[in-house]
Amino acid sequence: MMTGREYVESLKKMTPRVFYKGKRLDRPYDHPAIAPHVKTAAVTYDLAHDPKHADVMTATSNLTGEKISRFTHLFWSVDDLVRKIAMLRLIGQETGTCFQRCVGLDGINALWSVTFEVDRAKGTGYHSRFRTFLKTLQREDLMSAGAMTDVKGDRSLPPWQQADPDLYVHIVGRKPGGVVIRGAKTHITGAVNSHEILVMPTLGLPPEGADYAVACAVPIDAPGLSVVFGRQSNDARKEEGSGVDCGTPFGVVGGESTLIFEDVFVPDARVFMAGEGDFAGLLVDRFAAWHRANYGGCKAGNADVLLGATALLAEVHGTVKNTVVKDKLTEMIHLVETNFAGAIGSSALATKLPAGNWLVDPLLANTVKQNVTRFVYQVARLAHDIGGGILSTLPSDADFESDEVGGLLKKYFAGKAGSSTDDKRKLIRYIEGMTSVSTLVEALHGAGSPQAQRIVMLRQARLEEKAKLARKVIGLGKGEK
Amino acid sequence: MMTGREYVESLKKMTPRVFYKGKRLDRPYDHPAIAPHVKTAAVTYDLAHDPKHADVMTATSNLTGEKISRFTHLFWSVDDLVRKIAMLRLIGQETGTCFQRCVGLDGINALWSVTFEVDRAKGTGYHSRFRTFLKTLQREDLMSAGAMTDVKGDRSLPPWQQADPDLYVHIVGRKPGGVVIRGAKTHITGAVNSHEILVMPTLGLPPEGADYAVACAVPIDAPGLSVVFGRQSNDARKEEGSGVDCGTPFGVVGGESTLIFEDVFVPDARVFMAGEGDFAGLLVDRFAAWHRANYGGCKAGNADVLLGATALLAEVHGTVKNTVVKDKLTEMIHLVETNFAGAIGSSALATKLPAGNWLVDPLLANTVKQNVTRFVYQVARLAHDIGGGILSTLPSDADFESDEVGGLLKKYFAGKAGSSTDDKRKLIRYIEGMTSVSTLVEALHGAGSPQAQRIVMLRQARLEEKAKLARKVIGLGKGEK
Amino acid sequence: MMTGREYVESLKKMTPRVFYKGKRLDRPYDHPAIAPHVKTAAVTYDLAHDPKHADVMTATSNLTGEKISRFTHLFWSVDDLVRKIAMLRLIGQETGTCFQRCVGLDGINALWSVTFEVDRAKGTGYHSRFRTFLKTLQREDLMSAGAMTDVKGDRSLPPWQQADPDLYVHIVGRKPGGVVIRGAKTHITGAVNSHEILVMPTLGLPPEGADYAVACAVPIDAPGLSVVFGRQSNDARKEEGSGVDCGTPFGVVGGESTLIFEDVFVPDARVFMAGEGDFAGLLVDRFAAWHRANYGGCKAGNADVLLGATALLAEVHGTVKNTVVKDKLTEMIHLVETNFAGAIGSSALATKLPAGNWLVDPLLANTVKQNVTRFVYQVARLAHDIGGGILSTLPSDADFESDEVGGLLKKYFAGKAGSSTDDKRKLIRYIEGMTSVSTLVEALHGAGSPQAQRIVMLRQARLEEKAKLARKVIGLGKGEK
Amino acid sequence: MMTGREYVESLKKMTPRVFYKGKRLDRPYDHPAIAPHVKTAAVTYDLAHDPKHADVMTATSNLTGEKISRFTHLFWSVDDLVRKIAMLRLIGQETGTCFQRCVGLDGINALWSVTFEVDRAKGTGYHSRFRTFLKTLQREDLMSAGAMTDVKGDRSLPPWQQADPDLYVHIVGRKPGGVVIRGAKTHITGAVNSHEILVMPTLGLPPEGADYAVACAVPIDAPGLSVVFGRQSNDARKEEGSGVDCGTPFGVVGGESTLIFEDVFVPDARVFMAGEGDFAGLLVDRFAAWHRANYGGCKAGNADVLLGATALLAEVHGTVKNTVVKDKLTEMIHLVETNFAGAIGSSALATKLPAGNWLVDPLLANTVKQNVTRFVYQVARLAHDIGGGILSTLPSDADFESDEVGGLLKKYFAGKAGSSTDDKRKLIRYIEGMTSVSTLVEALHGAGSPQAQRIVMLRQARLEEKAKLARKVIGLGKGEK
Repeated sequence: MMTGREYVESLKKMTPRVFYKGKRLDRPYDHPAIAPHVKTAAVTYDLAHDPKHADVMTATSNLTGEKISRFTHLFWSVDDLVRKIAMLRLIGQETGTCFQRCVGLDGINALWSVTFEVDRAKGTGYHSRFRTFLKTLQREDLMSAGAMTDVKGDRSLPPWQQADPDLYVHIVGRKPGGVVIRGAKTHITGAVNSHEILVMPTLGLPPEGADYAVACAVPIDAPGLSVVFGRQSNDARKEEGSGVDCGTPFGVVGGESTLIFEDVFVPDARVFMAGEGDFAGLLVDRFAAWHRANYGGCKAGNADVLLGATALLAEVHGTVKNTVVKDKLTEMIHLVETNFAGAIGSSALATKLPAGNWLVDPLLANTVKQNVTRFVYQVARLAHDIGGGILSTLPSDADFESDEVGGLLKKYFAGKAGSSTDDKRKLIRYIEGMTSVSTLVEALHGAGSPQAQRIVMLRQARLEEKAKLARKVIGLGKGEK
Repeated sequence: MMTGREYVESLKKMTPRVFYKGKRLDRPYDHPAIAPHVKTAAVTYDLAHDPKHADVMTATSNLTGEKISRFTHLFWSVDDLVRKIAMLRLIGQETGTCFQRCVGLDGINALWSVTFEVDRAKGTGYHSRFRTFLKTLQREDLMSAGAMTDVKGDRSLPPWQQADPDLYVHIVGRKPGGVVIRGAKTHITGAVNSHEILVMPTLGLPPEGADYAVACAVPIDAPGLSVVFGRQSNDARKEEGSGVDCGTPFGVVGGESTLIFEDVFVPDARVFMAGEGDFAGLLVDRFAAWHRANYGGCKAGNADVLLGATALLAEVHGTVKNTVVKDKLTEMIHLVETNFAGAIGSSALATKLPAGNWLVDPLLANTVKQNVTRFVYQVARLAHDIGGGILSTLPSDADFESDEVGGLLKKYFAGKAGSSTDDKRKLIRYIEGMTSVSTLVEALHGAGSPQAQRIVMLRQARLEEKAKLARKVIGLGKGEK
Repeated sequence: MMTGREYVESLKKMTPRVFYKGKRLDRPYDHPAIAPHVKTAAVTYDLAHDPKHADVMTATSNLTGEKISRFTHLFWSVDDLVRKIAMLRLIGQETGTCFQRCVGLDGINALWSVTFEVDRAKGTGYHSRFRTFLKTLQREDLMSAGAMTDVKGDRSLPPWQQADPDLYVHIVGRKPGGVVIRGAKTHITGAVNSHEILVMPTLGLPPEGADYAVACAVPIDAPGLSVVFGRQSNDARKEEGSGVDCGTPFGVVGGESTLIFEDVFVPDARVFMAGEGDFAGLLVDRFAAWHRANYGGCKAGNADVLLGATALLAEVHGTVKNTVVKDKLTEMIHLVETNFAGAIGSSALATKLPAGNWLVDPLLANTVKQNVTRFVYQVARLAHDIGGGILSTLPSDADFESDEVGGLLKKYFAGKAGSSTDDKRKLIRYIEGMTSVSTLVEALHGAGSPQAQRIVMLRQARLEEKAKLARKVIGLGKGEK
Repeated sequence: MMTGREYVESLKKMTPRVFYKGKRLDRPYDHPAIAPHVKTAAVTYDLAHDPKHADVMTATSNLTGEKISRFTHLFWSVDDLVRKIAMLRLIGQETGTCFQRCVGLDGINALWSVTFEVDRAKGTGYHSRFRTFLKTLQREDLMSAGAMTDVKGDRSLPPWQQADPDLYVHIVGRKPGGVVIRGAKTHITGAVNSHEILVMPTLGLPPEGADYAVACAVPIDAPGLSVVFGRQSNDARKEEGSGVDCGTPFGVVGGESTLIFEDVFVPDARVFMAGEGDFAGLLVDRFAAWHRANYGGCKAGNADVLLGATALLAEVHGTVKNTVVKDKLTEMIHLVETNFAGAIGSSALATKLPAGNWLVDPLLANTVKQNVTRFVYQVARLAHDIGGGILSTLPSDADFESDEVGGLLKKYFAGKAGSSTDDKRKLIRYIEGMTSVSTLVEALHGAGSPQAQRIVMLRQARLEEKAKLARKVIGLGKGEK
């Protein structure tokens, strides 16, 4: 397994075509907008070497028998799923932000299971290809990003009826030895600092959309692939230098990019679905189930840091012993632990798939994500409530360092006797970042928008079974009609 | 293990002193207000004989090696705790209401663990007494009710400062071979149709309150014990006969009683705490943790029936395919499964206690109960919304059976073509019952009021640990002070 | 204007055909299920004679120049509308329950304005007929009930496509001098103790549904009209006698009935719409706008009593000074006053209709009702939270009066020193009644279900206007396309 | 009255000492961080000249008889208060953001009424001083900012017990002809581009805090006054140029500053309170009541634009006809109009103060603000839900303009056929800005934090009156004790 430092070095051997603010970046990993995300992902490598966390951070590969990072491990049991959630919470606590790697992890599990089932149904050979790919991923300890969401254009139309057929990634050519794909995937967490991109379809597809049913692995520096790094809340502050206003060294959210595939050639060994549209929905559902449960882990870890920061800020304000403030902190705890409990619950009720790995309970996993879409806003409001108006109006680093007004600002932004104004400012900037639009929207739409979860929940809950229970308990059908 | 019928027969051998509506009941178990609760508890006995549910409903006693009802089983593993939740959901689905038995189950687990720890700390001999008592309970397959909540008088005062010292159950005499207790326990679910009452203290106690630290087992027909069966929503309808207005055969909520102990003598073999006030709070917390998690199981089972009934009523109304109606059903599902997921999650993260049985994660268990206190009201609103105004204005059975207007009512209360008006009325009455004050308040205050959960959550969440995480991630303490 | 006593006497001269629990009632107004509602309506008459409330309770008729009850008054100004809300809150405070009369009040205003507009459009003569009818109503100070909601059968079908054409009230015959109507109206508040029923259509109607577009006035004892009084939560307790368990003398909700019209002949002078389906929707919308605003008045008045009761119960429990309890009371206040503010706001922005009376702002009025549908459940939860589990388990009157256990119950249900156990029980029973299914469902579905309000809100908000504002502010359309 | 252009010119004659990002700004009004706020305030001047809005935007001074901007007008009637809300909504719609001027408006009304009452009680001469000041403000059509919130230090301590006595603004010297003040006011909306600062105390003060009871007017360029302009969400983007990423020309929130008073001398003619601590709380309450009602006006206007933008974005996405999307838009409407209705309601129930101006109903006004503190988060969530993940990940202006990837981005970020990608980006950036931390926190803490409103609500609701109502309705005190 690589260390964080080795991971960063390994990235620097790659030559992705990365754009940000209109410029192609020569050294993307050092750019102040991107470096914090690299640093965050590096923590996932370093923690895997910490003996204290070995049970949580590492596992033994059943493909190779070797000790591997849990981020390249298949879920072979309930225990693996529970440990995954524990791992996500742990790293969430250590970084206070998104560490990007769960998309790839769920992606490999989804591909493992669905390639198996496609082969079984259609006699194709995707599963062994994927097994080979996965072994390499495990051995080389590579970071993979899952790329599912297409740019979608007009959402009232299916992919093949869009004005521009490229608005969903699709196969535009089949050559000897591989396929050629075109299109764009967007909101791709961690893509810029991953080694591999796992391309997956974003919806179930009927025969007329077969070319859109494509899953494959593409190196981040594949010819024809452009990476446009998106803007984030307050991103421009990072370019101001290394002051408090930049936030923590780990940034916020997952460094989302848009990936543009301009006729990228993917060799057969890296193609895991190429036209089996009847299995595309299954792939999406599998991936989504695992991924939606995660939000009860990582967001709880992040919220632990946010809660700590909010409590510390209340202490600086002199309000932390106030009964109403404590009640608000309790409410934050309640919301966070509700999600964590759900993530564990959906893991504990996992079932075994035909390919041997285990799937979380999809109904419960979807409730977790649905709750996250609500709770982050409530948690943000409570943090803002306790944190105060200063979250909106704090002057800049440069003002605090200014000869002319710096002294005055330090005088006037003092908190409780003995507290540090610098620390107060850091707490404020951290809370600001973790409740920004980038963070809220990521929690809302990541792993699927709220409505996506509701569709699954209604389907999974099987109302017809509940109607049967009601008929029996209530004694329907007895008596006149 | 007894069958349901044997359970009912066993009750009839007892002679409790039961009052309801001003009368002492000679045959309490046949009274129309009480019989539905007996019938519900009987289901817990019958299901234990159903081979299909054997894994969930039964277990092997580690005290006797015999097959026993899970309701008298100690929790020896995570698996036992997960199965408990599954059992609660199952019976909740089969009865559509409270089946009363989880209080006793959690009570025996709490007493098992705390008597062990008291003995270890103080050299007392409570644990072996309790083991003997529990063996009998298992062998004879008895139903026990947990009696924790005192009547409390003025809640701003501790027990020993109340105007009347009896407002919390306490030891008023210590005789050779036993103790004498006085006071009243209230809201006691299932008490009237239990064989045994497990008396437990309701709060932690300092030395001056030592006499209030009493835990013991009292047969329901012990001399000096009076049982006053409380009123429930629409209870008087049950005495009108067996029509639709009575609701299902299983009634609503758990048949709560007030138990008045007028100097009841309890022999030593049945006394499990008698003055160890420093362990009373532990007993309450243990019991509460297990018990609060339950609400994610039984209430989910009940809600399954309610959801089924609501969907069926929507079908009768011709609205079930409406997108907005489906969205409301989805919301009900979401709330219910959030709770269920939490109950499983708190079970999956259980830890082993010194006495060998396993305790659910208290923080997560408290979030479950807290959510229930909110969700039942939201679920009720959604069921009412879909069910319509008729939930409030439906005419009586007798009107529907009347020669003069019965025909007209059947004509005018017709639903979708082909549906039964009788079934429609039954659905309405079931929804009415399951969203009544009795049901809502039970869900709110059962296993402790909302504030009780918040106190535990704040304590369990250890904000100081979160503050440490924040300090580290945010880099506090670096820079000027 | 009649006094309360005169009102009751005037009722007794009528001979409606009333059914309840399978029996035709000879003296319906004295029946324990109905008498509380009569008593409540009588308060609306008595308060009109109280000089202290003259400004609010009475007005000067612009038809006759006489002083009349505001309940028969047309809304001639913003001031009239604001005073109406004040009147509703006042009587809500004096009775603690629904006093039934606002449906008729809004009905006469709706008919006044719509008959005017129908006549103007079609040259019919409804308005002068209605004016004559209204003069009588004002002079004789009669109580009118509005009857809008049909039984509806299969709600996915329009009236004329139902399996039974009678599931919406319709004209089945046109005779010289009048029309014959058939069908049933349900959930009709105050009907049994009104003098007149104002029949109104429940939805807009295309030409094929013209016969369903019927508005008219029918005396409660008209031949062919049957009144079936619906069941309410805990209605059977009222027949137990006059104890605490019966609740207050005023009962809960509005004494809703189902009215069955078996070919009732309505003379022309009392017919105000007979086929003008293109105006039926307007009539519904007008009525609904006024009526939905009301809920910010009457429910606030009721909630004032509920708040008072809850605070008193907290005092008895010794918890009223607890910061968290005060916060919960504050939340109840907040919800209640939000609604009241909205009702006043929708009145203050009223506009003048062609017929001269004033219409509340429909968008704002609909928000009021929508909020009520949510807030009653939240208010109930808070009252239950503060009130405690005893709301679900309190023993009966008869037990408290029993020789055997009455003394014990009084001992054990004592509250704070000096408080009365009888008063405690009364508080509990009042809270129980005001949060029962009858009360909650009435608040939810009265004046239209939540979805009805949402449809109006979306239509009234004119998103296209908001889009224009956005285009301008954001500068759309400038730049490439 | 000045035009917008004249207003901007008038500012440029002033020489305030303004700091931003560590630099003193020579031409603060032209700085890209500040200019949008100047531009927004200018709209309030221009609209006053638009005949279409004359009724709403202007009034006749009762001090001078001249036509004046409503922003310098006292509230002489309910009508003035209703028009104020209408004005706030109008300008909110025209600018889509905070236009800063209501703080000064409410400040002059608060000072008008309280100086009158102080003089009446104490024989001081503040009111005539203030009248003179106000006449000038009206005649010269000056913009005034209200400065109430102190920096507060340790909030568990009163001003005079802080480690540093300057943490609340106070009088540090009384000289012939005036007073000298020291301290800092923070979160001061519109300060940098106002002519006058109205300093007001932030809490009620006992005798030992008398020196903190200071109200006065200070020109923005008074010697000794420093203005530190705070950071806002995404403020650094404004310095990138005039692209889409900057947001609208009007910016977000109100351009809040911290004002540092280093021994500023205020001549007597401008001092309106100087030691009357027993009236300081009254001044705060008065100001707060008016100001809290405002949020139902301006925020509704802003939300109109946000709603329009969200609906337009849904149109671009092709989702606007989806039933669930429409329901979410309806929910946004509902929340917004609830607030607007409340603001109108609190205005309609205004009462006349001793000094002749009218005060909104404080209880209702506080509910408005309390709702805003919740609703902005819900509205933000709904806008994010409909807007999609792109709110978090949209690439920068420069990327869209880049030769290398601009074309690709335009291709891939296309929406529905015929829609403009530039417009799509503008909609996204507007929604991003209006749901940013700056905006949310301003809505939460502006005009007082949530708890401040709850304290007023509990006090204003007079529970003891409600208890009396309950006693009467429920019949307490009748029966045994």
